Amino acid sequence: MYEFNRNNFFSIKKIYRATEISKLFEKKLIKTRITNDFDILDISSLKNIKKNSFLFLDQEFDAKKNNIANILFITEKEIIFNNPNFENIILVKNLNESWNILLNLIYSHEDSSDYSDEFTKIDNSYISKYAKIDASSKIYNNCVIGKGVEIGKNCIIKNNVVIKNSLVKNNVVICDNSSLGTTGFGFDYKKRGASDLNPQIGIVIIDDNVHLGSGCTIDRGKIDYTYIGKNSMIDNLVHIAHNVEIGDNACIAAQTGISGSVIIGNNVTIGGQAGFAGHLKIGDNVVVAAKSGVTKNIVDNSVVAGFPATDIKKWKRQIIKQKKDGY
Amino acid sequence: MYEFNRNNFFSIKKIYRATEISKLFEKKLIKTRITNDFDILDISSLKNIKKNSFLFLDQEFDAKKNNIANILFITEKEIIFNNPNFENIILVKNLNESWNILLNLIYSHEDSSDYSDEFTKIDNSYISKYAKIDASSKIYNNCVIGKGVEIGKNCIIKNNVVIKNSLVKNNVVICDNSSLGTTGFGFDYKKRGASDLNPQIGIVIIDDNVHLGSGCTIDRGKIDYTYIGKNSMIDNLVHIAHNVEIGDNACIAAQTGISGSVIIGNNVTIGGQAGFAGHLKIGDNVVVAAKSGVTKNIVDNSVVAGFPATDIKKWKRQIIKQKKDGY
Amino acid sequence: MYEFNRNNFFSIKKIYRATEISKLFEKKLIKTRITNDFDILDISSLKNIKKNSFLFLDQEFDAKKNNIANILFITEKEIIFNNPNFENIILVKNLNESWNILLNLIYSHEDSSDYSDEFTKIDNSYISKYAKIDASSKIYNNCVIGKGVEIGKNCIIKNNVVIKNSLVKNNVVICDNSSLGTTGFGFDYKKRGASDLNPQIGIVIIDDNVHLGSGCTIDRGKIDYTYIGKNSMIDNLVHIAHNVEIGDNACIAAQTGISGSVIIGNNVTIGGQAGFAGHLKIGDNVVVAAKSGVTKNIVDNSVVAGFPATDIKKWKRQIIKQKKDGY
Repeated sequence: MYEFNRNNFFSIKKIYRATEISKLFEKKLIKTRITNDFDILDISSLKNIKKNSFLFLDQEFDAKKNNIANILFITEKEIIFNNPNFENIILVKNLNESWNILLNLIYSHEDSSDYSDEFTKIDNSYISKYAKIDASSKIYNNCVIGKGVEIGKNCIIKNNVVIKNSLVKNNVVICDNSSLGTTGFGFDYKKRGASDLNPQIGIVIIDDNVHLGSGCTIDRGKIDYTYIGKNSMIDNLVHIAHNVEIGDNACIAAQTGISGSVIIGNNVTIGGQAGFAGHLKIGDNVVVAAKSGVTKNIVDNSVVAGFPATDIKKWKRQIIKQKKDGY
Repeated sequence: MYEFNRNNFFSIKKIYRATEISKLFEKKLIKTRITNDFDILDISSLKNIKKNSFLFLDQEFDAKKNNIANILFITEKEIIFNNPNFENIILVKNLNESWNILLNLIYSHEDSSDYSDEFTKIDNSYISKYAKIDASSKIYNNCVIGKGVEIGKNCIIKNNVVIKNSLVKNNVVICDNSSLGTTGFGFDYKKRGASDLNPQIGIVIIDDNVHLGSGCTIDRGKIDYTYIGKNSMIDNLVHIAHNVEIGDNACIAAQTGISGSVIIGNNVTIGGQAGFAGHLKIGDNVVVAAKSGVTKNIVDNSVVAGFPATDIKKWKRQIIKQKKDGY
Repeated sequence: MYEFNRNNFFSIKKIYRATEISKLFEKKLIKTRITNDFDILDISSLKNIKKNSFLFLDQEFDAKKNNIANILFITEKEIIFNNPNFENIILVKNLNESWNILLNLIYSHEDSSDYSDEFTKIDNSYISKYAKIDASSKIYNNCVIGKGVEIGKNCIIKNNVVIKNSLVKNNVVICDNSSLGTTGFGFDYKKRGASDLNPQIGIVIIDDNVHLGSGCTIDRGKIDYTYIGKNSMIDNLVHIAHNVEIGDNACIAAQTGISGSVIIGNNVTIGGQAGFAGHLKIGDNVVVAAKSGVTKNIVDNSVVAGFPATDIKKWKRQIIKQKKDGY
């Protein structure tokens, strides 16, 4: 896990005590069990559990094996609530709506009207007063660098680039008209619209020596981060959704789209216009042919093609068969 | 139909009388029949007929059932011209070229060299003197808001967003690097090039509580408008062409493209990288799987997948068969 | 071939003599044979051979038939080096790495930290002091026009457009948020990352009366240029890679992607979301249906569809067969 200080990006509007949280849910609250009280200073995910935080829980979790001191769990599953190992837990009616209620009350985030930042025009771009950019890095024209953003050494940020809610390491090149740290497309299918999108309070991390092409969009994580590994090369008009993690040395051709929470290994090669369904695990050294539609996990060293993507040799046999059928 | 004042966006260069119009076509004119003379103040479409306007007619139209007083019809079909129910009608050689001639003479539009707008720098964006933005809405950095544009209450327009020729209602969020009100891709296949593109003098309407992602493009209507219904959520790098109308509560994933004049019902869910051929009708509650290529109308409550898109159960059977063929 | 002065875009840091070049390769150098010495003033490609230049050679080349006076060849193939017809030639260990070494030493290019340009704010855009824009052309807001760029007569460059390393002829319209002259995605699969991308020192040429939509990306050539022919119309979110050449009167619908070095004839019509593999030759008057994946050369007057793209009649028969299989 990479650590970052969420408060640099999204300010806490008010520090609540654990015992105060349940009231915030109003009609969504069912019941609550708080054993000790504490300040809520951050949010945890299952991947990254922090003291003095809350954690939205919708799946099995071993409350005994993990250190859960000063963590407030929120769940919509009574079976989880009834597990006595959870010392501090709230049962709510709808986890997704409860997320929206709580996050909107606690955090000032980019999609809420109380969000603010302060910009200074430096050279020809708008740079937040709360951004840190190494003097060796170059920012071209009409860029926007938002608060909390850190840009390391020897980076080149070209023109009309928007970087918000992101940490950019060293020797990174980001080409024109790309947007980083944009809002992830997270929601409940039953409640739609801008005001019901889930607040996204994670970030984007671009590691050393990444090349990002033009017109790309990289959404920030919901809680943790979207990550692009070292020495990865990404072509133009690529979309990378929230929580995606891409290993080192990736090569991703133009117009590919990677849905939310996909985890990709090291040394992958992905052709143009490929698409990935959400929550997949893609192994190391995988090659995905252009225009593939990947719908299942892929093990290390695989070469896949087609939609739904399959072993490329099988796909080629399918194509030959189809051609014959066409006569 | 939603009404808007076209003159707020595209100024009329000269108000012609109906009897003056035929001369403008020069060599494209075949014959003319004007029963009464009147000022030409606007343009009609078959969906939205207005008095004191002209209407380009290329299909059957019941001149008796509709109120055609003070409407000047222009057609390339002699059978339409010969219908005596049309009181004011012009027969031309080529309807598409006649569109270009007439629109370029009457309107100053965004793709003509005589177009102009006046911008003021407000905060860090360029706002037209002729745009109206509610004080409760926020415009971030490097945006351009063109003339005639109205933005309602509590909207968030992020960075490097271009909004022209558009009405944006309330509680709308538009993310970084998106472009609204851009020029529709309308033309005659036989005459190509920037100077032969059809002038597009409609607008874009974004209704309440819409979320539009980053890097999207929404073209304005040719005569009327491109419309995004209430509570719709659109992900990144989505292309929506001219005259498309999308109902309420749509959910459209990244990199999807919707061709011109597609009409989509309420509550649709569309996966990423899907594509729609032009002029289709898509019903309510339709689900379109990712990477689908929709080539035909889809009735209410359908779930489709594949290219050409078909019922998802049939598509899955096809896939199983193809996999077997691959062995 | 269209001629351009590379120095207008990418300045030579130092003029080397042919005899000095071999030392620059350091450990990559194997051996060298220099018959006469001369100044290295430019780079040649096999398409465009210039005196007083170097030429990276990885394929057969008739050194007798071509005028090779004052050309320094660089190759990694001993069989080429051993051909005595090459008067001035260097044998290196890795042609791709040698490209990077030499280009980074000789040229200050956009992806190197020593690159610089000087901008003046004119109206509401940043224009390089070294760009030439005809007074009859309009540049809207928040654009960036880089050094060496020339824009001809009666062009309309809309908002937030980035044009670098490009020659734009007359009557061209470029819509909002598009990027021209961006960095091509050229590299060796074995060495990845921003610092190992091949320096790209070619340009983009947009010929007369081209319409380019919104959110497009057009990469510059590696040595020569990416070219869009007269009267071509390109829709939104289209990606055109380095070295692509498109003939006159092309019509390319939204979200299509064309990989590097594809050569396309005149009068082609390409549907939306189509993709082209690299290095293909596409004939005149070809029609490529939407969502096609073109993997092979296409002869004149063909109509193709599907992935891999095939004759559209065959494709339709395949589809009918697949549908039957789905029952």
